[in-house]
Amino acid sequence: MISFPSKLLEEAVNEFAKLPGVGRRTAMRLVLHLLKEKEDKSLALGNAILAVRQNIKYCKTCHNISESDICLICSDKNRDNSMICVVEDIRDVLAIESTNQFKGLYHVLGGIISPMDGIGPNELNIESLVSRASENNVKEIIMALSTTIEGDTTIFYIFKRLKNINISISTIAKGVAIGDELEYTDEITLGRSIVNRVPYNYSLLKM
Amino acid sequence: MISFPSKLLEEAVNEFAKLPGVGRRTAMRLVLHLLKEKEDKSLALGNAILAVRQNIKYCKTCHNISESDICLICSDKNRDNSMICVVEDIRDVLAIESTNQFKGLYHVLGGIISPMDGIGPNELNIESLVSRASENNVKEIIMALSTTIEGDTTIFYIFKRLKNINISISTIAKGVAIGDELEYTDEITLGRSIVNRVPYNYSLLKM
Repeated sequence: MISFPSKLLEEAVNEFAKLPGVGRRTAMRLVLHLLKEKEDKSLALGNAILAVRQNIKYCKTCHNISESDICLICSDKNRDNSMICVVEDIRDVLAIESTNQFKGLYHVLGGIISPMDGIGPNELNIESLVSRASENNVKEIIMALSTTIEGDTTIFYIFKRLKNINISISTIAKGVAIGDELEYTDEITLGRSIVNRVPYNYSLLKM
Repeated sequence: MISFPSKLLEEAVNEFAKLPGVGRRTAMRLVLHLLKEKEDKSLALGNAILAVRQNIKYCKTCHNISESDICLICSDKNRDNSMICVVEDIRDVLAIESTNQFKGLYHVLGGIISPMDGIGPNELNIESLVSRASENNVKEIIMALSTTIEGDTTIFYIFKRLKNINISISTIAKGVAIGDELEYTDEITLGRSIVNRVPYNYSLLKM
């Protein structure tokens, strides 16, 4: 076991090593990097961590990260509040927003149902989705979850919870990625994309 | 470009992304991990970074990290102050200390001569090494630098600076790593290890 020349160094390395994907060697490299940098640069990282953890809020409607009680997307009058896109976490909101193809609202579940990891429906923001879906103006719920067994399970659970509400439920299109060569597409995706083929639509080429 | 829902989030991601080997996606993942963790755990990382950067000192003798003016190794009366092991940075001190095979003192250069990166002799702690080597008690300087062109250049430069001082200069042994199979050893290492072969010494087997 390495004996550290300084308790402060050891603590910083230990804290970095708790981050996902960061081992003790990487943690040591990062701390020594911070020590070599100009002091204000290193302090900026420490202060940014404290600030984000202490001051960040979550939108009370969609559970997206926010600086106020209602996030910028939910409070934007120009967005279509008849559509709610259900996503696993905040990164998915950012990913979909960067496509500029969706002008509705979001609902962040905070995870997907995964019994292996001890995550059941009660750990997720599903109750608040059901009550949002019951509101008059909402017409469509779009499920944009990972195309995995856990994602499918979560979609099915939410579908059952919403089945008494008069609302249309859709999922994002699954198939061969744009720009992919068929030769390198995995067999399951390719097989399903043939079974679930759609009528040719010239106007989509312009997207 | 991703539009962040919060300035605080954006700043934290930007600061993480400045770390070596951390891209913007990884930075985002780390920040969201900190937001999911219990608050005191995330604050511990921020505070540890601030503490280590603001309070750490360097040993005035050997430039190792220290909590006082003279580090624990330099101030240890049980260590052999006739030997100084020259290393590139603090990680090398930790690596050699963990072998328990060296009981002398260290000298941390803070880098190696690398014109490509703009690091010349003046950027390194070489002057202080020359003055330590001139002290009466020092008998041997052990060069424990990377076995690269930059390492060899640095050793040669230090050798020239020390040549008027009556002191022995050695380098760490280079050759096939213990436990390695010859089949997988690179040709240069294997070739040199044959040229620089040493007399068989039974007592080393017990190490």
